[in-house]
Amino acid sequence: MATTAAAGPATADRAYAAVDPFIGTGGEGHTFPGAVVPFGMVQLSPDTRIQPRKDAYGWAAGYRYDDDSIVGFSHTHFSGTGHSDLGDVLVLPISGDVKLERGDPDVPGSGYTASFSHDTEVAEPGYYAVTLDNSGIRAELTASARVGVHRYRFPKGRPAHLLVDLRTSMYDYPGKVLWSRLRMHPDGTVTGYRKTRGWAPGRELYFAMRFSRAPRGHEFHDTEQDVFYKGFPPPGHQDPGQRAQIEGRQLVATLDFGTPGSADGGDGELIVKVAISPVSEQGAIANLDAEVPGYDFDRVRADARGLWKQALSAIEIDAPDADRTAAYTALYHALQAPSLFMDVDGRYRGPDNAIHVADGFDNHSTFSLWDTYRALHPLLTLVQPERRNNDFIRSLLAAQRQSPYGTLPVWSFHGLETWCMIGYHAVPVIADAYMKGIRGYDADAALDAMVASASYGPYDGIAQYMELGWVPIDEEGEAASKTLEYAFDDWTIARMAEAMGREDVARDFYRRAGNWRNAFDPETGFMRARNRDGSFRTPFDPTASGYGTDYTEGNAWQYSWYVPQDVAGLIAAHGGDAKLVERIDRVFDAEVDPSVFAHMEDITGLIGWYAHGNEPSHHLAYLYAHAGQPWRTQERLARIMATQYRPTPDGLAGNDDLGQMSAWYLFTALGFYPVAPASNEYVIGRPFLPKATLNLPNGRRFTVVADGLEQGHGYIGAVSLNGEPLQRSFIRHEEIMAGGELRFTMQADPNTGWAAAPEQRPYSMSTR
Amino acid sequence: MATTAAAGPATADRAYAAVDPFIGTGGEGHTFPGAVVPFGMVQLSPDTRIQPRKDAYGWAAGYRYDDDSIVGFSHTHFSGTGHSDLGDVLVLPISGDVKLERGDPDVPGSGYTASFSHDTEVAEPGYYAVTLDNSGIRAELTASARVGVHRYRFPKGRPAHLLVDLRTSMYDYPGKVLWSRLRMHPDGTVTGYRKTRGWAPGRELYFAMRFSRAPRGHEFHDTEQDVFYKGFPPPGHQDPGQRAQIEGRQLVATLDFGTPGSADGGDGELIVKVAISPVSEQGAIANLDAEVPGYDFDRVRADARGLWKQALSAIEIDAPDADRTAAYTALYHALQAPSLFMDVDGRYRGPDNAIHVADGFDNHSTFSLWDTYRALHPLLTLVQPERRNNDFIRSLLAAQRQSPYGTLPVWSFHGLETWCMIGYHAVPVIADAYMKGIRGYDADAALDAMVASASYGPYDGIAQYMELGWVPIDEEGEAASKTLEYAFDDWTIARMAEAMGREDVARDFYRRAGNWRNAFDPETGFMRARNRDGSFRTPFDPTASGYGTDYTEGNAWQYSWYVPQDVAGLIAAHGGDAKLVERIDRVFDAEVDPSVFAHMEDITGLIGWYAHGNEPSHHLAYLYAHAGQPWRTQERLARIMATQYRPTPDGLAGNDDLGQMSAWYLFTALGFYPVAPASNEYVIGRPFLPKATLNLPNGRRFTVVADGLEQGHGYIGAVSLNGEPLQRSFIRHEEIMAGGELRFTMQADPNTGWAAAPEQRPYSMSTR
Repeated sequence: MATTAAAGPATADRAYAAVDPFIGTGGEGHTFPGAVVPFGMVQLSPDTRIQPRKDAYGWAAGYRYDDDSIVGFSHTHFSGTGHSDLGDVLVLPISGDVKLERGDPDVPGSGYTASFSHDTEVAEPGYYAVTLDNSGIRAELTASARVGVHRYRFPKGRPAHLLVDLRTSMYDYPGKVLWSRLRMHPDGTVTGYRKTRGWAPGRELYFAMRFSRAPRGHEFHDTEQDVFYKGFPPPGHQDPGQRAQIEGRQLVATLDFGTPGSADGGDGELIVKVAISPVSEQGAIANLDAEVPGYDFDRVRADARGLWKQALSAIEIDAPDADRTAAYTALYHALQAPSLFMDVDGRYRGPDNAIHVADGFDNHSTFSLWDTYRALHPLLTLVQPERRNNDFIRSLLAAQRQSPYGTLPVWSFHGLETWCMIGYHAVPVIADAYMKGIRGYDADAALDAMVASASYGPYDGIAQYMELGWVPIDEEGEAASKTLEYAFDDWTIARMAEAMGREDVARDFYRRAGNWRNAFDPETGFMRARNRDGSFRTPFDPTASGYGTDYTEGNAWQYSWYVPQDVAGLIAAHGGDAKLVERIDRVFDAEVDPSVFAHMEDITGLIGWYAHGNEPSHHLAYLYAHAGQPWRTQERLARIMATQYRPTPDGLAGNDDLGQMSAWYLFTALGFYPVAPASNEYVIGRPFLPKATLNLPNGRRFTVVADGLEQGHGYIGAVSLNGEPLQRSFIRHEEIMAGGELRFTMQADPNTGWAAAPEQRPYSMSTR
Repeated sequence: MATTAAAGPATADRAYAAVDPFIGTGGEGHTFPGAVVPFGMVQLSPDTRIQPRKDAYGWAAGYRYDDDSIVGFSHTHFSGTGHSDLGDVLVLPISGDVKLERGDPDVPGSGYTASFSHDTEVAEPGYYAVTLDNSGIRAELTASARVGVHRYRFPKGRPAHLLVDLRTSMYDYPGKVLWSRLRMHPDGTVTGYRKTRGWAPGRELYFAMRFSRAPRGHEFHDTEQDVFYKGFPPPGHQDPGQRAQIEGRQLVATLDFGTPGSADGGDGELIVKVAISPVSEQGAIANLDAEVPGYDFDRVRADARGLWKQALSAIEIDAPDADRTAAYTALYHALQAPSLFMDVDGRYRGPDNAIHVADGFDNHSTFSLWDTYRALHPLLTLVQPERRNNDFIRSLLAAQRQSPYGTLPVWSFHGLETWCMIGYHAVPVIADAYMKGIRGYDADAALDAMVASASYGPYDGIAQYMELGWVPIDEEGEAASKTLEYAFDDWTIARMAEAMGREDVARDFYRRAGNWRNAFDPETGFMRARNRDGSFRTPFDPTASGYGTDYTEGNAWQYSWYVPQDVAGLIAAHGGDAKLVERIDRVFDAEVDPSVFAHMEDITGLIGWYAHGNEPSHHLAYLYAHAGQPWRTQERLARIMATQYRPTPDGLAGNDDLGQMSAWYLFTALGFYPVAPASNEYVIGRPFLPKATLNLPNGRRFTVVADGLEQGHGYIGAVSLNGEPLQRSFIRHEEIMAGGELRFTMQADPNTGWAAAPEQRPYSMSTR
C-alpha cells in the first residue's frame, strides 16, 4: 500500500478531462462556465444577460445555460452565490456596425448583444470558447491569476471593433456605478477603473488592457447626460475619438482594429489581455506585465491547464464516468474561492478601503463564511497546500486588524465587508485549521481576533447574547439562528484556546458553547427565540422562515438540529436517541408544499423540510450517527446524492455557494463529513465512489475503497482502517493525514450494529 | 547703500500687522478670511453660506462679508476664484441641541447654522477667531501646511458637540458628492474621505481628525435614503451611535464631548486638529502626527505667524498706513497659490488621479494659469526662494508626464485638470523662470513638455492653429483670444529655446509668435477671428463678449491689444504710435453701460472698456510706454489704483484670481510691471509707495524710492538706477537681482520727453 506517491500525469489528464464547467450554470447553481485558475483573482466569463436588481438572482454568475445571447465577457464573477455583484470590465468583440447599447436580448440586432448556441461552446478549466452567431466571431477566453486573455477571430471584410462597457454589473440598477474612468495611453494600452455601490459599497476596481494589434482609433463615450462645468469636459474633446481620458458614471469605449483582410486590418486575429487590480491602474499594468508579458494565448491556456491538473490531482478517483465528472467538477468548483486579491507587488485593498501590503502571504478575499466554514474550508485543509490555508487565515487576520470594527470578516469580497448572513464564522475556519496543525500565523493574535469578533457587542445582538446567553428576539431579528451559530463558533474558540493553554478563554467559551440550550424549547422540541424576559416569542409557527421570524434562511424544522458541537447534548435534551431520530425522520419525511418558501429564493432542494440547497441542512443526515444509527445516515445520503446532484447544467440543487455545495458532495462521496469543524473528526456516512485516493498536502496518500459498491450496495457492512476493523462512525483527521486506506465493505442490508454503541459515536462536547 | 541686509524683526512685525485678511471678502474679490500658511495645503476658513450652483459665484471662497451667519469651518478654499469648488470637511461646534441640517440662514434656529457679528471677529495671517452668537462658543482657527487646528471654548452647562458635515461644498448641487466615508477609530481619531464631481471631476480628499479630549460618543448619519442591500448596512448598526464606519453620499457626524462644567465635560475648551491628504486616511494621520503632534494651539498659531512674517518680509514698505495695508495684504494674497499638494511622505495625486511620489521637490497644485502667468508668477520669482519657484515648475512638469494628454496643466487644482479658460500658460511660467536663471529642473524635458503642450492638436483648435496660423472660428469658439494667447505663449517657447541653443524650436516658435497678425483686422483696427477660409467672421460687434463670440471673457475692445511680445509690431500694424495711443485712449475713455457685461460675471472694474477685474486688461495701461508716451501710462495707473483697490472688505474690483490682482497691485505700486514675462524686462509705470525695498531671494536688496510722492506728484520727472540716470521705460530683471536703488523723482506735470525715443522703449520682438 503506497502512501506517499504523487498522482501521475495520466491521472491529472483524466481528472482535468472529467471536469464539466457547465454543471451548475443552469437551474439555480449560479456557477459560471468561463476561464479561471485555482483561486484566481480574474474570473473571465460570458454574461448572457445583465439583469436589473429585481431579476438578478438567476444571473448571479452572469451566465444562465437557458439563455441564447451574450452581452459580453466580463472579468469578475462569483461562483454560486445567491446574492450577486461583480461583472467588471465587460468586453465584446463586434464585427461591422457598432451599437453602444445592449438592446433587447429578445430582439436580435436591437443592440450589441450577440446570439450564440451551445453547439459552438467549449468549456474546460481555464478555457472557454464560443462563436457569436450574428457576427461569426470566434471568441476564446483563458486566464492567469490576475489577467484575462481573450483571443478573437474576426471575419474578414467587416470592420473589427471591441466594445468595453463600464456601465454594467451583476445586480444592476441606476446609480450603481459611482464613478469610472477610461484612459487611452499613447502606446495603445487602455486603463481605467470604476467605483460601485452595491453589495460591497464603495468598491474600486482598476484594470489595464493591451492588444496584440494597437487600436487604430477609439471612441470614449459618456452616455449619461452630464451637467456643464466651466472648462469641463475638455475643450475640443466632445469628439469621442479625441478623448485621451474620460471620467463619468456611464462610460463605454469602442476600439477600432481596422478591417481584417484589408491592408490595415491584419488577418482577423486579435489577442486582448486584461489585468485587474484592487489598487491602481499602475498596479494593473504591473500585473499585466508580470503575468502575461506577450500575446501567446496558447501558452496562457496551457499554464492554466497545468495549474488545474495539479490542483485536481489532489484526488484520484476511480468511478463511473458520470460520478467522476460530478466529483471532479465539484473539486473544480471547490478550488475557486477564497480567491486571490492582491497585486503582484503584494498591495491590496482592505475592509477600510485603504491600501495595504501583504507581508509574507498572499491576500485572499471572497469569504462566503456562513457557507464555507462548514465543509469547504475543512476540505481545503485536505486538498490544498498548508501555504494556501495559512494564506486564508493570514488574510482573515489582516482584515480583522484593518477592520473599522476590529472584527474578522463575515462575508467579504474584494476586500470589503458586506455583513451578509450571520455569525462570526471566520472563527471556526481558523480554529479548524489550528486544531489540524496548520499554524503559519500568530496564533495568539488569531485567538485574540476570534475573541474580539465574538465580543463585538453592536453586531447582531452579541452584546445581549453575552449578557443573557441568548439573542433576544424582541431586540434582534432571527435570534434563534444567531444564538445557535454563536454557540457553535464559541465552542471552536474554546477548543483552540484549550489547545493553546489559554485556560481562561477556553473556560469562558466552553460555557458560551452551551448557550444552544437557551434556544431549546422542550415543550415543542424546536429551537426557538426567546425574548429578553426569557419567554419564547409567540405565536410560534415552525414552518415560518426568514425575515421577521426566529430564523435566518430557514425555519424551525431546519434550524432545530444545529448543535454540531454537542449532538449528544441535543439528544439528551430531546429525551434520547429514539426521540431525535424520530424528529429527524419527520424532517425528511414531511410532506411540504414548496410554495411555503416562495419568498426565500435560497431555500431549494427540498426533501421534506430538508433543504439541500441551503446550508443549515447540510449536517443533518449525519446526525443519525450520533444517535447510534449510522445506517439511517447511509439511507438519507443515498437519497440526497441521487436527487440533488446531476452532472448536467441544472445539476445542482441550489447555489454552489463558493464551493460549499461541492465540498459537501466530495466529502459525502468519499464517505465522511466534517459535522463539527475543529473537532478533528469526520463523521462517516458512506462512500459513493468505488475508489478514491487523497494525495495529501503532506505528500502522503489516503485511499478510500468501497468494496461492493458496483453491485449497488447502499449500506456499510464493515469498515477497516489500514486493515484493522473500524467500529466507530467517525475518523480522525490525524488518521487521514497519516496516509493509509479506509476500506468499506458495502452490502445490501443495513448493519444496524455497527457503531451503535455510545463510545463508537462521533464527538460531542458533553460526552468527550 | 546696503544691498544685502535682511529685514529685521521689527520690519517683519510691522508687515504682519499691516495685513487685513478681510480685504476682498466683500464685493467680488472672493478671498477668504481664515487661517492658512504661505502656500499651505489647508485653508481653514468660515463658510457663511453653502450656495447651490446657480448662486455660487459670490460664495466662491465660502465667506461673504455681508453675511451674518456661519455654516461651519471648512478646510479647503480658493483665494479669489470666479468659478468655485472645495469647502471640504465642514466642522461646526454646537452647544446644546444638535440639528443635522443647516436650516435657513435667514431663520435663526431653523438648523445648525450659527449667527455672528463682525465685532467678534479677528483675522490675521494664519489665525481667525469669531464668536457664534447663538451659542456663545468662541471659535479660533489656525493652520500648519497640512493641518487645520480649531480651538473652541464651549459655554458651561450645555452639552458640547461637534458636527462634521461631508455633504456640502462650494458650488453645491445634488449628486456632487459621489461617495464618502467616516470612521471612528478606537483611539478617538476620526478619519474619512470624500469623492466629488464638480470642477475637477472625480476628486478625492482624505482627512484625519483628533481631539484634545476623546469624544464620549458619536453618531454617524446618512441622510440620504439608501436602498437596501442584503446584509448592508451592517446588522445592529442602524443605531448611528454604534457605527464604527459609514459610507454613503450624504454623511454627517456628530461627536459628543460631554457637558462643560460637569464631571465629564472638562472646562469647555476643545482643540480639534484636522489633517487633509490627497492620498489616503493613513496619509492624513501621518500628516497630523508630523505637523501637529500635540494640542498646543498657540504654538501652531505662533509657527504660522512666523512663516508669514518671514514671507512678508520679502518687501519692506514705508508708506501711509492705508497703502501699507493694501500692499501687504496684496502680498499676503499673492503667497497662497499654487499651494502645496502632497503628503509629508511625498505622495500626492496627479492629473491621472493616480498616486505619485514627488522625488526631490514639493508638489504644488491650484494653478490658475490663465490669470497667474501674467504677474503673479513673475512676482514670485522676486519674493520667494528659487526652491519654491523650482517646485512650481517641477510640479508642472510632473503633471505633464502624468497627464493623459501629455500636456502641461491648464487650470488645475488638487492635482486634477479642469480645462478652465484657454491657452497653454504653464509655458510662459516656465520660460519666464528659465530666462531669469531659475533652473532647478531638467530644462530639455521642460522645453519638450512646452512644445508638446503647444502641439496637442485636439485641444482648443491647436491642430488648426498649427495648420493655418490661426484658430478658425467656424471650427472653434473664442478663436481670436486663442490665436492671440497661443502666439504669446509661442514666443516664450522661442525665447527659452533660443537661450538653450535649440535653434530649430526657436525658429519654429518665433514664427508662430507672429500669428497675432492673423487676428489683426487692419480695416477695423480690432483683433478678430477668422474662418478657415481666411475671411473674418461677420457680422462683427466689437462690444460682444464671451460665449459664442470671438473672445474669451472679453470683447474686441479688451482683447485687441494682446500682443505683449511685440507691441512695436502692433503699433506698426495700427500705423504708428499716435494711432495706438488714440485707440487705447478710446478704451479707457469710452462711455460704457456696464449692463453689456451682465452675462459675464468675471468682467468687472470697468474704466471705459478697460476691465480691471479681469486679466485681459491687465497690461493695457503700460502699453503707452511702448508708444513712447509713458506719462500716459502714469496717468492711467493713477486712475486704476485710485478706483480699483481699497483697503476694505469690498476693496477689490474683481476676483483676486489666486493672487494675480494682488500681484498687479504690488508691481504697479513698486513702479514697474512684467508686460511680457520671459522678456526679463519690467515696464516702468510709476511708483505709488514712497519707499519699498525688495529683500531678494539671492540675499540682495533692491530699493525703490519715490521722491516727491508725498506731495501728491503723479508724474515721473526723472529716474535713476544706482545713482545713474535711467532714460528708458523699462528695467531689466538682472538689474533688480543685482540689488541697488531705483529712484524716481516725481513731479506734478508730465515729463513727456522721458523714455520717448524708440530705443528707450520696452522690448518688442520685432524691434529687438
